[in-house]
Amino acid sequence: MTLGNLVIEIVKKLGVSHVFGVPGDYNLRFLDYIVESDGLAWVGNCNELNGSYAADGYARENGIGVLVTTCGVGELSAANGIAGSYAHNVSVLHIVGYPNSKLLESDAPVHHTLGNYRKNSFLTTFSAITGAQTILTATNYLEELQRVVLHMLLTKKPAYIGIPTDLIDMDISHTIEEILFYPQSHDAIIETLGNRILERFLRAKKPLFFLGANIARFGLRTLMTQILQKTDAKFGTTLMGKSIINETSVAEPNFLGIYAGDYSTEGMVGIVQSSDCIISIGTVETDLNSGGFSEDGIDFENVITVRPNSVKVGKTLYSGIDIEKLLLYIKEHAKPNTLADKTFTLPKESATLLPSLKGALNHKDFWTRINKNIIKEGDIVVAEAGSSLFGLVQQNLPTGIDFVSQILWASIGYTLPSAIGSAIASPHRRVLLFIGDGSFQLTAQETSLIAQHNLNITVFLINNNGYTIERAIHGATQPYNDIPRWHYLDLVKALGIKTTFSIKTFQELEHHYDAINQKGPKVVELFFDPLDFPPLLKQISDKLEAANRK
Amino acid sequence: MTLGNLVIEIVKKLGVSHVFGVPGDYNLRFLDYIVESDGLAWVGNCNELNGSYAADGYARENGIGVLVTTCGVGELSAANGIAGSYAHNVSVLHIVGYPNSKLLESDAPVHHTLGNYRKNSFLTTFSAITGAQTILTATNYLEELQRVVLHMLLTKKPAYIGIPTDLIDMDISHTIEEILFYPQSHDAIIETLGNRILERFLRAKKPLFFLGANIARFGLRTLMTQILQKTDAKFGTTLMGKSIINETSVAEPNFLGIYAGDYSTEGMVGIVQSSDCIISIGTVETDLNSGGFSEDGIDFENVITVRPNSVKVGKTLYSGIDIEKLLLYIKEHAKPNTLADKTFTLPKESATLLPSLKGALNHKDFWTRINKNIIKEGDIVVAEAGSSLFGLVQQNLPTGIDFVSQILWASIGYTLPSAIGSAIASPHRRVLLFIGDGSFQLTAQETSLIAQHNLNITVFLINNNGYTIERAIHGATQPYNDIPRWHYLDLVKALGIKTTFSIKTFQELEHHYDAINQKGPKVVELFFDPLDFPPLLKQISDKLEAANRK
Ligand SMILES: Cc1ncc(C[n+]2csc(CCOP(=O)(O)OP(=O)(O)O)c2C)c(N)n1
Ligand SMILES: Cc1ncc(C[n+]2csc(CCOP(=O)(O)OP(=O)(O)O)c2C)c(N)n1
Repeated sequence: MTLGNLVIEIVKKLGVSHVFGVPGDYNLRFLDYIVESDGLAWVGNCNELNGSYAADGYARENGIGVLVTTCGVGELSAANGIAGSYAHNVSVLHIVGYPNSKLLESDAPVHHTLGNYRKNSFLTTFSAITGAQTILTATNYLEELQRVVLHMLLTKKPAYIGIPTDLIDMDISHTIEEILFYPQSHDAIIETLGNRILERFLRAKKPLFFLGANIARFGLRTLMTQILQKTDAKFGTTLMGKSIINETSVAEPNFLGIYAGDYSTEGMVGIVQSSDCIISIGTVETDLNSGGFSEDGIDFENVITVRPNSVKVGKTLYSGIDIEKLLLYIKEHAKPNTLADKTFTLPKESATLLPSLKGALNHKDFWTRINKNIIKEGDIVVAEAGSSLFGLVQQNLPTGIDFVSQILWASIGYTLPSAIGSAIASPHRRVLLFIGDGSFQLTAQETSLIAQHNLNITVFLINNNGYTIERAIHGATQPYNDIPRWHYLDLVKALGIKTTFSIKTFQELEHHYDAINQKGPKVVELFFDPLDFPPLLKQISDKLEAANRK
Repeated sequence: MTLGNLVIEIVKKLGVSHVFGVPGDYNLRFLDYIVESDGLAWVGNCNELNGSYAADGYARENGIGVLVTTCGVGELSAANGIAGSYAHNVSVLHIVGYPNSKLLESDAPVHHTLGNYRKNSFLTTFSAITGAQTILTATNYLEELQRVVLHMLLTKKPAYIGIPTDLIDMDISHTIEEILFYPQSHDAIIETLGNRILERFLRAKKPLFFLGANIARFGLRTLMTQILQKTDAKFGTTLMGKSIINETSVAEPNFLGIYAGDYSTEGMVGIVQSSDCIISIGTVETDLNSGGFSEDGIDFENVITVRPNSVKVGKTLYSGIDIEKLLLYIKEHAKPNTLADKTFTLPKESATLLPSLKGALNHKDFWTRINKNIIKEGDIVVAEAGSSLFGLVQQNLPTGIDFVSQILWASIGYTLPSAIGSAIASPHRRVLLFIGDGSFQLTAQETSLIAQHNLNITVFLINNNGYTIERAIHGATQPYNDIPRWHYLDLVKALGIKTTFSIKTFQELEHHYDAINQKGPKVVELFFDPLDFPPLLKQISDKLEAANRK
């Protein structure tokens, strides 16, 4: 067995079947191992940033994603994507091809280094944006591979492994043939804490579960759904936690809405403020996720917060608690709270049909139509941080949706490659991507992979002539919020997409529902006025501008 | 005066008239100052990596370039470009829009941060890839602006300035109205050293100047040309120093060729080894620039090396020497060496016309034709690190050429945005870009700026179905060296380019010379066999593969 074989084995053990990235002379030998492996496929991206986004999208579906780049030029191109995975707890393993170990040791000014005769590794750079990082040597490889991979498994943060190209073929069969991972976990006080939480829940009048994105990131969606079923409890989510649990009133009558301070859906602020027991699980605090830190009027004595490695009950913080064990315990012992206030709920959605509309598309009416006519049970819905995200978060989506967005890191252009990663990870699901023209321009070339791999992705491209979300924040008509004019449909055709739609009015939209709902790669260009915003977007942008200025 | 005004003043004092970048809510207020300024134009890029490359290309023409991004997502997207500027001593000032200072102080998990409640600045990241870096505060701004800008002026390394968005409008008129920069310099031993170098030159039998890229980076091309004229001395360049001095035998009969160890042009190795006085100025040591560190057979007692801040005479190193002052002194006191060996030279290029060719394009004949029929005096020639670079370096180019390439950092995709920066910096010159299809895919969207700004750029796109330079190094027919198939000419049309050519044979090429030589944006697609390489490329790639494996 060689070191290359071992790394391939690890990648396969982690449940990965597709590896993303861009070749470079320092990683070519490793790519040979991928190509020759049984069970791993290489997906070459157009550039490394796009590769990192694709690995992130893949990991959100699959648990773990792998990115391979060459050192210097390749890894630094991916830095923004890796940082986004860090911010959102997405486990991307970044494997970087390094020069020959002797060259590396010698500080020789070889290509892809800064040529300054200093150790030219970017470990410092990546130490800020990955959870664990290493460069393998002939002596450290076994310890370091373990340390870095285990750290990723425990924290879900991306990890970085540099491999000098000459070590790939190094024979290691005298030491190792197989490696198995058992992330540690602690169970000292799980029982005490689980009981305390359940007691609080059972004696409350208006108990409420409040659920966040880390439930998905730590693979706890099924467990959480079981707890909700056994407790028959009311619940809401954060913005970042959107759709991690079914949110239609039919499937989940206990779903109340999204709470995010001033950015909450209707009625949620009152509900949250009046609750006497909020059990917050896997939630994340960020400006957008908290309505610009406007979570007022809550008595924190009534709040229990369960985070990946800690639990807070009122003002007491328990550190080092394994979230999965705790939720398992709660699931085992959960029962409904029969005392709970039955009126503590929201009115049911009306089932009335949406009337047909005439005239140009607008955000007020567009997203309700999309939700009724396009988005279907089980779809993966990917929303770019722009009018798409803020149009979609206010819709209650069908059951079994994976909702992908980057609300904290908010790197535009992220969603196109990410959707590709999701589609490759879950080939039997349909991916619906909603992306603004501005965002599309950052990573547009990756569209060619949708065609090349014949992915079941429909791209809804919001053409509103520029950075509308920025116009909403500042400089509505300033030239810096304009973007170069592209012929988007010609462009995607040149990249291999055969099916395209150009839609300006609601009639045209209605006319094409069936065709759009067909399987296969397609791009739907949708025209909007540059100064038309989804209602929530205007509210958020005013607040952002105020925070920037004050 | 506000801080925003002061920063704009500084940017203008540095001789900059175009600022590159991408907006984001944390920098929008600063962009207002650019838009409203007298004498600064905003050039919005499709993404930040492309913006950093464009600022680099602009700086190579103009001395200094400026890039504006938003923090986190924006700056990290540009990291690879900034690192390339560092490796190549290109002065790019990277201005990063930060959140409001109070938010920043509070470690609040706002958007575009990692959300981990730690100081979320990427100064550590950028400390590895910029020369000086700072985040401005209400108290430090004057000291820090000076320190960082001066460092850039002295070292030519990129610099990083973060500005919290609320400080842009801060009134600073009580402290400052104007700022002037005087980079320090030392002249203690300039005279001694200058004389020693001249004496060595004058008593040598076979003296030789050996010139490198930093002559261009430090703005010393004119001075160097004057020295060559006054001394009437023979000279060669490095690969990275290609074309910094005229290299046609008519304009510069003293030009000998390129010396790069095993990658030298014909006859150069013998010439260099037999010289008894090599005066090396502004050269840089890297693997490609030194023929894989194969500069053997030179007696280093005969070598004088002048670097930006040091001079080495034989085995004595003088540190802290201002290169410009030293060259000025040498120019003042220079005279020809009348003893020098007149036969110490290369045969003149033959003026014979190149015969017309039939059949498919090939690298052996293509580059000589391009050099004779397309490249003209005064052009800016940009060559991507691939078959383009290794095809072109072996041609002696016409006089007054700026030759742009990234031989050390070698980040593919660099040249397209960089060519845009060059064209904007030097609107009266023609830019010829030679780029491989693989490289083009990384940054292709930026083509739309060529159309949008109607730039005088001709893009020669080498379509050889993938990463040919990588095929030459390793895995000639491995799938990872294939790339998605694009319809390149349809694509660039969708991005606004009106004039395009598709060329498969030498007859077609000959037929279109005149049309291609017309002014204005255009793209010429050229088809080559995936396994056809320029001769030098094969030689280099064999050596790279050996270095990776050994
Ligand atoms: C990598 C990156 N660069 C810049 C930004 C700043 N930014 C946030 S939203 C936005 C504009 C998005 O415009 P578009 O995708 O067209 O959305 P829409 O018009 O639908 O709002 C920009 C430039 C960012 N978030 N990420
Ligand atoms: C950002 C970056 N990613 C990856 C590489 C590794 N690399 C070096 S050359 C090359 C292929 C270039 O192919 P192309 O531009 O088509 O050139 P040609 O076919 O003309 O040789 C690659 C992938 C790199 N240098 N920079």
